[in-house]
Amino acid sequence: MPITEDILNQFSAVLGPKGFTRDAGEIAPWLSDWRGVYHGTAAAMLSPKSSEEVSALVKIAAHNVIGLVPQGGNTSMVGGATPLGDGRSIIVSLRRMNQIRTLDAEGGSVVAEAGVILETLHKAANVEGTRFPLTLGAKGSATIGGLIATNAGGTQVLRFGTMRKLVLGIEAVLPDGNIYHGLAALKKDNRGYDLTQLIIGAEGTLGIITAANLRLVPAVADRAAAWIGLESPQVALKLLRFFEAQSANAIESFEIVPADSLALVLHHISGTRAPLGSHWPWQVLVEYVETVTGCVAHDALIALVADAHAAGLVGDATIAKNESEISAFWRLRDSISEAERASGPAMQHDISVPVDAMPDFMLDAAAKVDAAFPGVAASGFGHLGDGNIHFHVRAPKGVDAASWRTGQGKAASRMVYDLVTTAGGSISAEHGIGQMKRAELLRQSDPVRIGMLRAIKTAIDPQGIMNPGKLVPLASDVDGA
Amino acid sequence: MPITEDILNQFSAVLGPKGFTRDAGEIAPWLSDWRGVYHGTAAAMLSPKSSEEVSALVKIAAHNVIGLVPQGGNTSMVGGATPLGDGRSIIVSLRRMNQIRTLDAEGGSVVAEAGVILETLHKAANVEGTRFPLTLGAKGSATIGGLIATNAGGTQVLRFGTMRKLVLGIEAVLPDGNIYHGLAALKKDNRGYDLTQLIIGAEGTLGIITAANLRLVPAVADRAAAWIGLESPQVALKLLRFFEAQSANAIESFEIVPADSLALVLHHISGTRAPLGSHWPWQVLVEYVETVTGCVAHDALIALVADAHAAGLVGDATIAKNESEISAFWRLRDSISEAERASGPAMQHDISVPVDAMPDFMLDAAAKVDAAFPGVAASGFGHLGDGNIHFHVRAPKGVDAASWRTGQGKAASRMVYDLVTTAGGSISAEHGIGQMKRAELLRQSDPVRIGMLRAIKTAIDPQGIMNPGKLVPLASDVDGA
Repeated sequence: MPITEDILNQFSAVLGPKGFTRDAGEIAPWLSDWRGVYHGTAAAMLSPKSSEEVSALVKIAAHNVIGLVPQGGNTSMVGGATPLGDGRSIIVSLRRMNQIRTLDAEGGSVVAEAGVILETLHKAANVEGTRFPLTLGAKGSATIGGLIATNAGGTQVLRFGTMRKLVLGIEAVLPDGNIYHGLAALKKDNRGYDLTQLIIGAEGTLGIITAANLRLVPAVADRAAAWIGLESPQVALKLLRFFEAQSANAIESFEIVPADSLALVLHHISGTRAPLGSHWPWQVLVEYVETVTGCVAHDALIALVADAHAAGLVGDATIAKNESEISAFWRLRDSISEAERASGPAMQHDISVPVDAMPDFMLDAAAKVDAAFPGVAASGFGHLGDGNIHFHVRAPKGVDAASWRTGQGKAASRMVYDLVTTAGGSISAEHGIGQMKRAELLRQSDPVRIGMLRAIKTAIDPQGIMNPGKLVPLASDVDGA
Repeated sequence: MPITEDILNQFSAVLGPKGFTRDAGEIAPWLSDWRGVYHGTAAAMLSPKSSEEVSALVKIAAHNVIGLVPQGGNTSMVGGATPLGDGRSIIVSLRRMNQIRTLDAEGGSVVAEAGVILETLHKAANVEGTRFPLTLGAKGSATIGGLIATNAGGTQVLRFGTMRKLVLGIEAVLPDGNIYHGLAALKKDNRGYDLTQLIIGAEGTLGIITAANLRLVPAVADRAAAWIGLESPQVALKLLRFFEAQSANAIESFEIVPADSLALVLHHISGTRAPLGSHWPWQVLVEYVETVTGCVAHDALIALVADAHAAGLVGDATIAKNESEISAFWRLRDSISEAERASGPAMQHDISVPVDAMPDFMLDAAAKVDAAFPGVAASGFGHLGDGNIHFHVRAPKGVDAASWRTGQGKAASRMVYDLVTTAGGSISAEHGIGQMKRAELLRQSDPVRIGMLRAIKTAIDPQGIMNPGKLVPLASDVDGA
């Protein structure tokens, strides 16, 4: 329905001047995603301060059939927080709902509102001698609500899992404006369908998350990191299994980096240097964490790597001598995307397959893409231990970026997603579907799966007002592009 | 619709003689629950051998609108696997689907069909040097499909979680007969709503689970157990937190037992004896597990208990000297229900509240129920570390069991559930809802929650053919009794 002055006045009356704006300049930064790929429009931006205000807003929107686009830090990788361009939606920013309601270090839980920024939560936990383990590059702006709505992953998933495993309970406003009160953290609760798990990862299409009860884990007492050169992803996986069998959960990160990615980083990122004197086709960054005070991570990791070397699983290795060297290792890993951007256009794919299948997949898929599209360079890096890599296809030298993306680049992407589907994997491991992958989700999915997604979406949000145009490829609005 | 000869012939044609029976004698044992509380009828019992056969059966049932009651080991505590008495349903036994398809000890996963018995899975994992950790009293007959459909818990939840945390993927036949192929174990997969998590704990009301990919964990290298006397549930919880902080996940069980429960066991169960020479109002059974070969659990647990004693958290304690003593400790714990039955009628409540709230709840609820219903004896025992106890209200001496159950007993149950709801807890921690708790679920739940359950049930199973009359209190069929 059209967004009338009367409706806008109703929203404004609920929120007051601090929570309501129609000012184009104020809204503008939130109409595009951070990478500048998606652009939309919004008649207003609503910034509620409480769950009750969110409830009141959603009731007005439901009554008038107006689309609401929930937004946290606006760091979606797939256009999930950007409104469509049809002018029929309103942004609901959760950024003013930024209170940590309770933090129970001993019991290991924290209740945070949707707008709490991840880094703020990290600091609040650290102050109390505990830890919220999930972390990722956008931690300075990503919010708890968005991280839950997208079931965020990151670099520390190996030990503690994705957001889905860290959420003990949630509070959310449903598409009819009712509040779902699910914050109580019950370790056992068999009263039917798990509504909390249903809303996690739903990308705001089933309701607006307003707060969550999150798991806390023991603080880092000491940590160490190793940079290890080896022959192949297959050896890397064997090394991971060896570490897991020996070290009882102390391995918190295990990131794989191919030689070409490392070379790009060393070439384009200032102040970087190769950790090893020898050259290896693959390397892994391993982080080892002790949570019991008095245990020395550095010594333990040295012993572990020595054992792995004796078992023939390590080509060459170096252990960071201090926190500064650990940070330098991480900088190499975290700069891969930036280095690639500096070297030319690329198509990026956040994909997963079963962990055991990943080493073969990495090599096979790269070889097939390289063969099918002469001049491109395909390779994967990232979270080998999660079966999740970022598989990038870099354009041939000298091509025009825009036309390559819509031509050969797009065809290469389709091939990557086809290979992933054939391998029983996921075309979105951690970034979600948003706007970007909706048509591809339809193309790659078993119709049975699409039918279930549609049935649930239509049942919970029959008017389609929750984050319209995202995630679920509805029969009515997908062009199959 | 009526179940005609023609329809039965269609089922029979799919299954052949081994998979189809109308013989009253063969069906009879499966028409009642194992406790003899629920009794139903069924026109036939179907025993498919494959997922494709299940699919074919469900398509026939969907076409003719016939209710299907999935059944595994028939060990439901809440009448969840017993057909209603209206003659409009057919039992689908999954017991012939009993193959372990693959077992990957190194990768830590096993794909088992729905009819695999839990104990069979335990043994298969042990043979390969690994472990499926979930266990419970009915392990000799409970099946994987039923355990997933009810999100089973048990005594080892503390470390590895309930079934929900152990399922990596599932295969299920949906109410339209289509097969949902979700067996691939992807550690990261953000392609929308988590359909696997939705089907877990749905008690067969959204489809029939035919197989699952399950997590395996390191085998027990050595274990030890302690029996500890202490002053109160509050001290018991402090002791648990102390152990957790010191022992990095080695505590796999932490069960609380009140003095009156122990006394009943010692009185009614032959061959039992009190582990401690001193008398304590509460005791806990702690199991400590080492998964690394060479670590001695007994010595580690002695040191841990000594530290706890020095911290003032232990009244008296004894450590089992061998496996036979460990089994004797567990026999005390596992005989509580049997001992109570021998002593007279009781109302049993499988309930949870947040872990930190449980000690106060145990004492307050018992005092309130004892005061409100003179002559009864209320107390809780069980999984303190999960916030889940079995709260039993024993009848006054000499009452008539049947009339007590429907009178004072029923009123006491309502009071218990009211107290649980007030405490933010669950009226079903691990047993599910089934037939038994459906009206109570409606009475105790926020209408928002009931609305979500109904919307999902109606969207996925619009004809209501999947396990009719279970779990979801539909508007059309609940009498509010």
